[in-house]
Amino acid sequence: MGDNKEVKRWNFGANEVVERSSSFTIRDYLYNLISNLDGRDNRPVIPLGQGDPSPFPSFRTDQAAVEAICDAVRSTKFNNYSSSSGIPVARKAVAEYLSRDLSYQISPKDVHITAGCLQAVEILISALATPGANILLPRPSYPMYDSRAAFCQLEVRYFDLLPENGWDVDLHGVEALADDKTVAIVVINPCNPCGNVFSRQHLQKIAETASKLGILVIADEVYDHLAFGDKPFVSMAEFAEIVPVVVLGAISKRWFVPGWRLGWMVTLDPHSIMKDSGFVQSLTNVLNMSTDPATFIQGAMPDIIGNTKEEFFSSKLEMVRKCAEICYEELMKIPCITCPCKPEGSMFTLVKLNLSLLEDISDDLDFCSKLAKEESIIILPGRAVGLDNWLRISFAVEFELLKEGLSRLKNFSQRHSKK
Amino acid sequence: MGDNKEVKRWNFGANEVVERSSSFTIRDYLYNLISNLDGRDNRPVIPLGQGDPSPFPSFRTDQAAVEAICDAVRSTKFNNYSSSSGIPVARKAVAEYLSRDLSYQISPKDVHITAGCLQAVEILISALATPGANILLPRPSYPMYDSRAAFCQLEVRYFDLLPENGWDVDLHGVEALADDKTVAIVVINPCNPCGNVFSRQHLQKIAETASKLGILVIADEVYDHLAFGDKPFVSMAEFAEIVPVVVLGAISKRWFVPGWRLGWMVTLDPHSIMKDSGFVQSLTNVLNMSTDPATFIQGAMPDIIGNTKEEFFSSKLEMVRKCAEICYEELMKIPCITCPCKPEGSMFTLVKLNLSLLEDISDDLDFCSKLAKEESIIILPGRAVGLDNWLRISFAVEFELLKEGLSRLKNFSQRHSKK
Repeated sequence: MGDNKEVKRWNFGANEVVERSSSFTIRDYLYNLISNLDGRDNRPVIPLGQGDPSPFPSFRTDQAAVEAICDAVRSTKFNNYSSSSGIPVARKAVAEYLSRDLSYQISPKDVHITAGCLQAVEILISALATPGANILLPRPSYPMYDSRAAFCQLEVRYFDLLPENGWDVDLHGVEALADDKTVAIVVINPCNPCGNVFSRQHLQKIAETASKLGILVIADEVYDHLAFGDKPFVSMAEFAEIVPVVVLGAISKRWFVPGWRLGWMVTLDPHSIMKDSGFVQSLTNVLNMSTDPATFIQGAMPDIIGNTKEEFFSSKLEMVRKCAEICYEELMKIPCITCPCKPEGSMFTLVKLNLSLLEDISDDLDFCSKLAKEESIIILPGRAVGLDNWLRISFAVEFELLKEGLSRLKNFSQRHSKK
Repeated sequence: MGDNKEVKRWNFGANEVVERSSSFTIRDYLYNLISNLDGRDNRPVIPLGQGDPSPFPSFRTDQAAVEAICDAVRSTKFNNYSSSSGIPVARKAVAEYLSRDLSYQISPKDVHITAGCLQAVEILISALATPGANILLPRPSYPMYDSRAAFCQLEVRYFDLLPENGWDVDLHGVEALADDKTVAIVVINPCNPCGNVFSRQHLQKIAETASKLGILVIADEVYDHLAFGDKPFVSMAEFAEIVPVVVLGAISKRWFVPGWRLGWMVTLDPHSIMKDSGFVQSLTNVLNMSTDPATFIQGAMPDIIGNTKEEFFSSKLEMVRKCAEICYEELMKIPCITCPCKPEGSMFTLVKLNLSLLEDISDDLDFCSKLAKEESIIILPGRAVGLDNWLRISFAVEFELLKEGLSRLKNFSQRHSKK
């Protein structure tokens, strides 16, 4: 008869939209795979699941960036709230940094500082999610776009990236998908998860297609400058005369500090199309209601950018290239894995699993789960990025660890091959 | 006939839900008031609009906290992505810190680290926004709850805080407002914007009312420990046996570092009601899709908490008390302003404007706009926190500046008084 025994109805509970949206996240897959690890295996866990090499000595960030943070926090000038789009010194530093590689100057007022590239995605998708609207996302993709779109109830339509064409965008598919409720297309370059880099010509074609369709281009360039193949990295910002572009970026990947949570969203709008439509105001309004990156990290931006030497970038890029090389070579030796393109950018390669050569593996998730359990390697199943029975492998880890991981992957594949 | 002249239809544009939601933000009011400042006025601008005294020498954060940040970023151990609910050392440090003042121990697994208290509000409101649900918010309030609820299309119902009862909650009003779609009630203590502190007895009554109604209590305790009157600060966590409680907090206010963006959301659920209902999972899922506070700031938390001396807190609290005192005394001398309660907590007092004594002031916004223009003082109009023709004054600024500001406010009021 006590109060505790009373059957009581509480009004709150699970949120179904949230449940569905969250099921797309890479984190969700990774947490599940990690729970499959065998605690009795004394070998080091080899984490090829995430684009985060920052814990490894070879990918330690530049000391100049670390000291910039210490100087900023010790200055006591940056303990206060930020303004919504970031503090002026940070906006100016990012505008100048991005303009270095462009044929024109970006204005600081077009730069909005965000808590990592992920918050830029959160804000952008929220602002785009008007009733009945739809957005074009690549398949395969970085699934946070899918999650945030589902969360905001923004309809998603998928266009293909074509492995047989070096993962180029299927532009005919894009045209067939779009209608007058299509608001934007997402282009990730260098590409997560495919590891390709789009050529200048292809980027221009994407811009022209988007212009024809009357839609915005969201250019996710968080892996900017991590291009180590034949094609140089070209920013979609170069095509803002053709179509309004929002460029997303961060210091996360080039400085190997994803945990610092400093990103940006740049509205490139020379014909004032985004501004006149009210969209820039909507973006600003969402920023007004959203948390900010730490003010002192923003305050450190001029020195992070100004004091990091070119040799830091070139030596790290060479390290990533070397990792990509060995990864590609070793994967080529595994019969059940096909690598359609040699990686030339980002930190990933996307490879096809030939299940018909394996005897007790039902699909990509089963492959990755057993691999975690038997070999203590974490690899992301392709379904997490939109392609069943593929694998996304991050090669940006300590070189010796990568080699060890690829060797374990080979052993695992042999052990599970049809005899 | 050139391309630029072509009339072209673009599919994207303003987002009306965003426009409406954002119009509630304090930032929006402050930016507008700042635009009213007279550039020819050489006197310092006196910022009494925001709860951010961090730029003032008297409210500088503890050097131990600054050094904790430098040690953490230099350790190179915290450059990586965080986990969704925060890194374990931060969750443990916050659990222990909050448990110091409680009659029981908080488990680290119930602590979710967020990018400031604001992100905790974002996440919590998103998770609560199921179709048809409503939430009970205080009037007056911290308007970010209103913004985020409007943004998520979660219906808001307002209960009154009663100035004649020391700003206590109108509990009869709460009962009359709630129905079986009411999911939660928000309680801000110490109170922004009213400056009161709820008694233990009143907090228990709120908990009992919420329990009876079957709703969650969201206890916003971002101003925890900033209580300097007769009533000690008591956390709503003490009543988690009665009703499920989510406590929100941050280091922003007690350490005077709102720009560091380190907050938390603690689910106190001894009877596993939130967990069994699926609500904790929904919260975790939203965290999975959301940006995180910088990992190295999280990594610094054990030292920020462990190395900040008690004297730091006591001397700063004394400073805030002294500011509150002078603010109350000086406001009492201004005829057109009524101060229903002497401030005893937070950084604010909420005072009533008697328009009938003023001759050319139409309302609170007009008062604040003219005050900014003529006297270079920023004060928030009451409408920004839900009460027309009141004023929210932040007294947590450098003491001499506060005195100067109150003197200018007095002159302004005299000048605009009916003769």
